[in-house]
Amino acid sequence: MSGVGVIGAGYWGPNLIRNFVAGGAYDEVFACDKDAKRLDSICKQIPSVRGYADVEELLANPAVEAIAIATPVRTHFALAKAGLARGKHVLIEKPMTFNSREAEELIALAASKGLMLMVDHTFLFTGAVEKMREIVKSGELGPCYYIDSVRVNLGLFQNDVDVIWDLTPHDLSIIAYALDAHPKLIRAIGHSCAGQGMVDVAYLSVEYHEGFSAMFHASWLSPTKVRRMVVAGSKRMIVWDDMEAVDKLRVYDKGVELKRLSAEDPSKIQVEYRTGDVSVPKLEATEALRKMTAHFADCCRGKATPICGGEKGLDVVRVLEASTISLKNGSRAVAIEDGALVPV
Amino acid sequence: MSGVGVIGAGYWGPNLIRNFVAGGAYDEVFACDKDAKRLDSICKQIPSVRGYADVEELLANPAVEAIAIATPVRTHFALAKAGLARGKHVLIEKPMTFNSREAEELIALAASKGLMLMVDHTFLFTGAVEKMREIVKSGELGPCYYIDSVRVNLGLFQNDVDVIWDLTPHDLSIIAYALDAHPKLIRAIGHSCAGQGMVDVAYLSVEYHEGFSAMFHASWLSPTKVRRMVVAGSKRMIVWDDMEAVDKLRVYDKGVELKRLSAEDPSKIQVEYRTGDVSVPKLEATEALRKMTAHFADCCRGKATPICGGEKGLDVVRVLEASTISLKNGSRAVAIEDGALVPV
Amino acid sequence: MSGVGVIGAGYWGPNLIRNFVAGGAYDEVFACDKDAKRLDSICKQIPSVRGYADVEELLANPAVEAIAIATPVRTHFALAKAGLARGKHVLIEKPMTFNSREAEELIALAASKGLMLMVDHTFLFTGAVEKMREIVKSGELGPCYYIDSVRVNLGLFQNDVDVIWDLTPHDLSIIAYALDAHPKLIRAIGHSCAGQGMVDVAYLSVEYHEGFSAMFHASWLSPTKVRRMVVAGSKRMIVWDDMEAVDKLRVYDKGVELKRLSAEDPSKIQVEYRTGDVSVPKLEATEALRKMTAHFADCCRGKATPICGGEKGLDVVRVLEASTISLKNGSRAVAIEDGALVPV
Amino acid sequence: MSGVGVIGAGYWGPNLIRNFVAGGAYDEVFACDKDAKRLDSICKQIPSVRGYADVEELLANPAVEAIAIATPVRTHFALAKAGLARGKHVLIEKPMTFNSREAEELIALAASKGLMLMVDHTFLFTGAVEKMREIVKSGELGPCYYIDSVRVNLGLFQNDVDVIWDLTPHDLSIIAYALDAHPKLIRAIGHSCAGQGMVDVAYLSVEYHEGFSAMFHASWLSPTKVRRMVVAGSKRMIVWDDMEAVDKLRVYDKGVELKRLSAEDPSKIQVEYRTGDVSVPKLEATEALRKMTAHFADCCRGKATPICGGEKGLDVVRVLEASTISLKNGSRAVAIEDGALVPV
Repeated sequence: MSGVGVIGAGYWGPNLIRNFVAGGAYDEVFACDKDAKRLDSICKQIPSVRGYADVEELLANPAVEAIAIATPVRTHFALAKAGLARGKHVLIEKPMTFNSREAEELIALAASKGLMLMVDHTFLFTGAVEKMREIVKSGELGPCYYIDSVRVNLGLFQNDVDVIWDLTPHDLSIIAYALDAHPKLIRAIGHSCAGQGMVDVAYLSVEYHEGFSAMFHASWLSPTKVRRMVVAGSKRMIVWDDMEAVDKLRVYDKGVELKRLSAEDPSKIQVEYRTGDVSVPKLEATEALRKMTAHFADCCRGKATPICGGEKGLDVVRVLEASTISLKNGSRAVAIEDGALVPV
Repeated sequence: MSGVGVIGAGYWGPNLIRNFVAGGAYDEVFACDKDAKRLDSICKQIPSVRGYADVEELLANPAVEAIAIATPVRTHFALAKAGLARGKHVLIEKPMTFNSREAEELIALAASKGLMLMVDHTFLFTGAVEKMREIVKSGELGPCYYIDSVRVNLGLFQNDVDVIWDLTPHDLSIIAYALDAHPKLIRAIGHSCAGQGMVDVAYLSVEYHEGFSAMFHASWLSPTKVRRMVVAGSKRMIVWDDMEAVDKLRVYDKGVELKRLSAEDPSKIQVEYRTGDVSVPKLEATEALRKMTAHFADCCRGKATPICGGEKGLDVVRVLEASTISLKNGSRAVAIEDGALVPV
Repeated sequence: MSGVGVIGAGYWGPNLIRNFVAGGAYDEVFACDKDAKRLDSICKQIPSVRGYADVEELLANPAVEAIAIATPVRTHFALAKAGLARGKHVLIEKPMTFNSREAEELIALAASKGLMLMVDHTFLFTGAVEKMREIVKSGELGPCYYIDSVRVNLGLFQNDVDVIWDLTPHDLSIIAYALDAHPKLIRAIGHSCAGQGMVDVAYLSVEYHEGFSAMFHASWLSPTKVRRMVVAGSKRMIVWDDMEAVDKLRVYDKGVELKRLSAEDPSKIQVEYRTGDVSVPKLEATEALRKMTAHFADCCRGKATPICGGEKGLDVVRVLEASTISLKNGSRAVAIEDGALVPV
Repeated sequence: MSGVGVIGAGYWGPNLIRNFVAGGAYDEVFACDKDAKRLDSICKQIPSVRGYADVEELLANPAVEAIAIATPVRTHFALAKAGLARGKHVLIEKPMTFNSREAEELIALAASKGLMLMVDHTFLFTGAVEKMREIVKSGELGPCYYIDSVRVNLGLFQNDVDVIWDLTPHDLSIIAYALDAHPKLIRAIGHSCAGQGMVDVAYLSVEYHEGFSAMFHASWLSPTKVRRMVVAGSKRMIVWDDMEAVDKLRVYDKGVELKRLSAEDPSKIQVEYRTGDVSVPKLEATEALRKMTAHFADCCRGKATPICGGEKGLDVVRVLEASTISLKNGSRAVAIEDGALVPV
């Protein structure tokens, strides 16, 4: 008998539970929440799920071979550490931890115990991101010029993290995966507009070691919901509009070519525009969360190598941490050097 | 007999000429361009227009009471100075000058001569900007939370200015006018992606004395043309999509309200969302350039006070200058203090 | 103890079941389906639901005071008749029956037994239709000019009804309700494009006694999903785009005014266009099906008068029947006269 | 010296004049209009154009080798006949004539004189229609299922023709050209909504000899401007949205496939949906009117065969005439048999 326990039955936990149940990789799915009402609700909806009010009891059950942590960010570290200490594989919601030190400790602990540690970067499993990675890998995109991403809407205000920690982990993990990119320099500009004390409108600028830059605009205070990412390469430019019901990804055969006008004077160049067809590729439609939970089970059982293991989660946390430092220092840049954050 | 002379018959000059002719405020409209082909072309299209190959000859014509300068930015100062020296009223294309020192000198010269000095911030005369200003003035918007503006497309690369100097003067003049806002702190993030040597993808962040901030995204390297500005207030949020053929402005009765949950503990607040109707006001449809040229003639004749006089042009140039300093200093902030630019 | 039994657990039945359960107007909700797999599936999802494989057994249960019929159209009549015969209130999916004779018989039977007979015209309970009716009732729309509705997508092909019977009942019931309109003359144009034997692309034209006409375009063979209705009045024009995630309804203050140019010659008229603001009213967001099921319970208990009683369902069926006659007669018109269908 | 004379300087004539001037195929371009103000206006705008107030004088000028007629429809026949009688090639605005008899007479006259007679079906020269024809010709579309076209907006009301005669000639000529299609059976449904006496909202149904049908919706009373055509084939489905600034044409690899489930029973079929990529082909961007006027000059000089000669114009007029008969006969169908219109 193999089982998985989901800790936290608030907003996201029930989605994990449903997908673990439907995926069938585990014989039993357990739910754990201190809030009796929430626990009761999910157990009534899915009668096969067994509920625990106490984490210790869940972890004491030998049938639980893995846990998934869907609680507020500040509690991730302690829960994950307890799970690993009891020999459980661990899946953590994004962002992985409250700081990189915690993430590093979890990674070391999982490694020493030979356990799987994975972060739920769900978007990596969408058809859109898979297709973007495919286009990059094939060379079709050409060298990347820049990335511009907008992820804004009205609400949901968080209590324990600002809007950068809340929304940009999606974009950071997507770019890291789709372009195999590694952050080098971070700047953050943020505003506390609504008077609630948290930065609620923000711009996160990231320069990557691979030679391009990205700007991530995140907001809890936008009149309309926008989920739009541009990945501009020299050969192709991709626009991903996740608010479209279908046809979310457009690939533009558009760009700029520089012609040197004089052999002697290299500054004499002429810009020429290229405008070709647009293609709207069909995207794989399986629900991303279903694929993520299946991938986690496979990784725990040695059948797959994680695409969003602890190290990837740590990479994201480092950028978030750098953003907080930058915000405190008047948007000064923060470099990531050998894993350390260095204000520049 | 009253006349106006337009210097520069390249991309924008012919538009000025056409509108001065159609407006009828001047008895004669003159065109001036060193390039014989361009001059010939506009004179053939509008036979009533008389052409000059030489600026000196144009300025020597006593019928010319005003000139409009639509040449590359680096030539604005010398031409405007020559015009003012000869007693002509002067209209300059945006951006006004290459640096604030030049702009200041022109303002002083015009003042000393009692001449009109105006900058062609055409967008101030659109129905959309007029309506935005009206909504702000009426108090309907409430205190401004933030501004987010995107002005991007593929091309047109400029030779003498970067993408911030090329595109953001529109947005800077719009915000200054619609919200009576004064820039305080500037940061710029820019990339030279296409290898042409100029910053071609950029983000300009401006904090205003009035307590809100704006982010202006400008790019010559976007696969799609976007002209979209969000002005978010606590009572209303405006979205202006200038790519819409009609119904460009949407006013959302949307926002956030904070409810204090405890009299003792002010940190216990609850965020509540408000979602009401959306309205799409009818916009005044007269061509903006027609209104701007008429306004210029009125101002020259003392019938109106300019909404985009030299001081307004200088305000924009100062922000652009600050952006260049910020770009050179790794995006460090630059403050505007009593008209001086101070890196912070 | 009061109970409701839903017959048919295929595509739509589970939605009814979920809403009856969540609404709480009935102490017990029963499901009935010959297909053991489907029955099992819904009972597992909602453990409080008790399943019946046999309709007779369901009807024999005295706790069942009402039934909802969500089976193929050809079976509606027999099931509803059996239910009424056993003294149950009856809710039927649209279209109510296979022909008007069956609908008339059910109406008479329900009346003689003092039972409620209602048709599930779900769209009447959406915020969009409620708002449209409100605009019409207030006089804001002015006299109606015409209605144009498009309801098309790729699939779902039905086996027992053509695309007119499948899709236009929505539009027919909406117009009847929002404008208190009564069909007078019907024409149908239809094509069997995909070779499956059924009319799969169709246009249904309806003239109403109230002086305006409507065209309903229905298709199973459209590359894109379109749900768009225009209700054009002399004072306002409404566009309802149900594919929009938010802001589905737009009310245009647009129209035409005729000015008589000569007192003697009434033919000398000049058309003037009026273009004013557009408003996007906030719509009531409660799920329509929840409201419909609550309304049904209220009607059964005498607390409300049905807005989609049997007579309304019959009105729709008559138009559908007329469309079939028209299709067979080369799109000749069919009049509805005192409830009879008369080819003209 | 070769010249072309454009008769009618109202709405469309100036566009023809500009394009004849810019195209350079004629040494001289003449304008002719009884209205002195309109004539004066175009001659001032383009000083090289010589104006005639009188058609006879224009036709008497031996330099005029061709005329273009851009006057109200009822005057087309007499003007074209006079031109042909004087030995001029003739280009006529759509619709070609007020009835098919007139069109037939002009065709015969042109043939007997060896002169070119062409109708200005401008849309045939757009990149979108060229690409549609290419997709059809290549076999990529597969057999056509159906066509659905919407061409509606608020205004411009015409005085001498109804909305079908005004707007559908575009669609009729496009389908005839892009699909090499020949109309067989016509039905029209029309309403006079605004009380101006003319049919202002209409639906024109056309069955083609080639086995598919089309519906053309035309309206002068729509709150929004829509220009949208669907050409659905068994292999591909094309959506042409002419209101899009760019990316007007989308080609969907979408459709339906029927699988026979039983060798014995041919009625046992299963519908399967195919959903593949979407492509947005780059369209040739040269102005259509420029290409049309050049094509006309080439045809007059025997360098090209007209794609919209008199016979094509006649085909369109026959459908329009049939629509008027259908409207008068309660939307009864009208067949085109060997060029004759036969109510069925």
